[in-house]
Amino acid sequence: MLTRPGDTVAIESPTYYGLLQVIESLGLKALEIPTDPIQGLSLEALTLALERWPVAACVMVPNFSNPLGTRMPDSRKQALLRLLTDHDVPLVEDDIYGDLSLSGTRPLPIKAWDRDGLVYYCSSCSKTLSAGMRVGWLVPGRDFQRAQYLQFINTVSVATPSQLALAHFLEKGHYDRYLRRVRSLHAKAVARMTDRVTELFPTKTRVSRPEGGFVLWLELPGRVNTTELAERALDAGVNFAPGALFSASGKFDHCLRLNCAVRWDNRVERALTRLAALL
Amino acid sequence: MLTRPGDTVAIESPTYYGLLQVIESLGLKALEIPTDPIQGLSLEALTLALERWPVAACVMVPNFSNPLGTRMPDSRKQALLRLLTDHDVPLVEDDIYGDLSLSGTRPLPIKAWDRDGLVYYCSSCSKTLSAGMRVGWLVPGRDFQRAQYLQFINTVSVATPSQLALAHFLEKGHYDRYLRRVRSLHAKAVARMTDRVTELFPTKTRVSRPEGGFVLWLELPGRVNTTELAERALDAGVNFAPGALFSASGKFDHCLRLNCAVRWDNRVERALTRLAALL
Repeated sequence: MLTRPGDTVAIESPTYYGLLQVIESLGLKALEIPTDPIQGLSLEALTLALERWPVAACVMVPNFSNPLGTRMPDSRKQALLRLLTDHDVPLVEDDIYGDLSLSGTRPLPIKAWDRDGLVYYCSSCSKTLSAGMRVGWLVPGRDFQRAQYLQFINTVSVATPSQLALAHFLEKGHYDRYLRRVRSLHAKAVARMTDRVTELFPTKTRVSRPEGGFVLWLELPGRVNTTELAERALDAGVNFAPGALFSASGKFDHCLRLNCAVRWDNRVERALTRLAALL
Repeated sequence: MLTRPGDTVAIESPTYYGLLQVIESLGLKALEIPTDPIQGLSLEALTLALERWPVAACVMVPNFSNPLGTRMPDSRKQALLRLLTDHDVPLVEDDIYGDLSLSGTRPLPIKAWDRDGLVYYCSSCSKTLSAGMRVGWLVPGRDFQRAQYLQFINTVSVATPSQLALAHFLEKGHYDRYLRRVRSLHAKAVARMTDRVTELFPTKTRVSRPEGGFVLWLELPGRVNTTELAERALDAGVNFAPGALFSASGKFDHCLRLNCAVRWDNRVERALTRLAALL
């Protein structure tokens, strides 16, 4: 809806590899904006990018981005929206992790401050209730009818049984109870994984402190290449996401992502011990 | 998977308007090949088109195309595949109506003769069991892994509950019984609608004789414009699909499509009488 092949799209860096694949398949160019684990996307870098290049759209996960787990502060969300408004660049806001705050406080999406229809807000129940239901939604910005038309000709609709099941679940109030439980489980899992990594991994390993979601981002000391490490780890039966996946331009070779949304048992303990030994 | 923006795609004419919308949204050009209600797509016209223009792909509904309801004869299906093979042009075969033969005989898809992986076979349960389930499938031609990759990054998967429900329905043998009933209902509905149109509409109206599916294609005598007629009919509470919808180049102004998959009652009778009066 917002781009044509050849256009440039500004994204967070590191970012979810699925987004990089979509950008590539649509013939678009990814412009990676450095993103800080605490402050979120660098507004300074984005300002420079918007002044220098024609950016067709910006795609972001301001609440608990994958892999950093950052919650962009509200003041920076508003500043980002002002910046995009000044340059008339639309924002695709992916809020798929927004309900998964580890503290329990649901942060506002940037869409909350959108007065000009510049924000195309997307979300889904895939990261909360069930990825298999394939229920997602879009609150489009300026051109609702065009969005509806493209939705229709591309997918007609989301599967009706899934929509009805989700509607029933929400109506009965189950979702809020479910969220409370799952947030608390994720918080424990992230804390436990952080503790084990701190104990087992090389001393100068840096670990993200996610405010939401269920993944950890690790920066390893020295000259380790995590893509090679991933191959050796897989031979030892251990799977993780190497850092290079999260960039289109070969960054983050010394980083990796751990998924904490696993049933914690001896297998996880052994896997972490093996990975640490390989390191 | 098979095209880039600017490419030309050969299609049947008349064709389903949803396909025209998809072609437009992907920035492709539609090359309309005349299609006969008895013989199907004109191989002579397609031969000419393939010799004269670079055609990236061909998209067809050889079994009971919408709106004509044509079943392309097997000998012509094989000739079409040979022609496409000679020009190395892939065929996207949409077999969504293939199970809805009015006689009860399930025709073979062109994919049945495909030895070179030139045919990308698509189908769905949307026209048989339920459009709301959103379950479809693809048997790709040459590049299975690329198809799987694009499916994954575009939709990840079909909703799991829908897939499991359909699998269960098939496993228990309900689908075959269901098909027998629904085919017989469609056959009766098509026959009844044909009878009423013959009685009520202008004498030189030509009506298709679909071999499958549940729509009728009408060619009206004289200089009637069915797009204008559709507006006036809608004011009178009557809805049909005007012929112009089925072409990207303004053909079929004097044609219209009637959907027979309706519960037959006095409202349908009154609607047909009103439409005939407007004509």
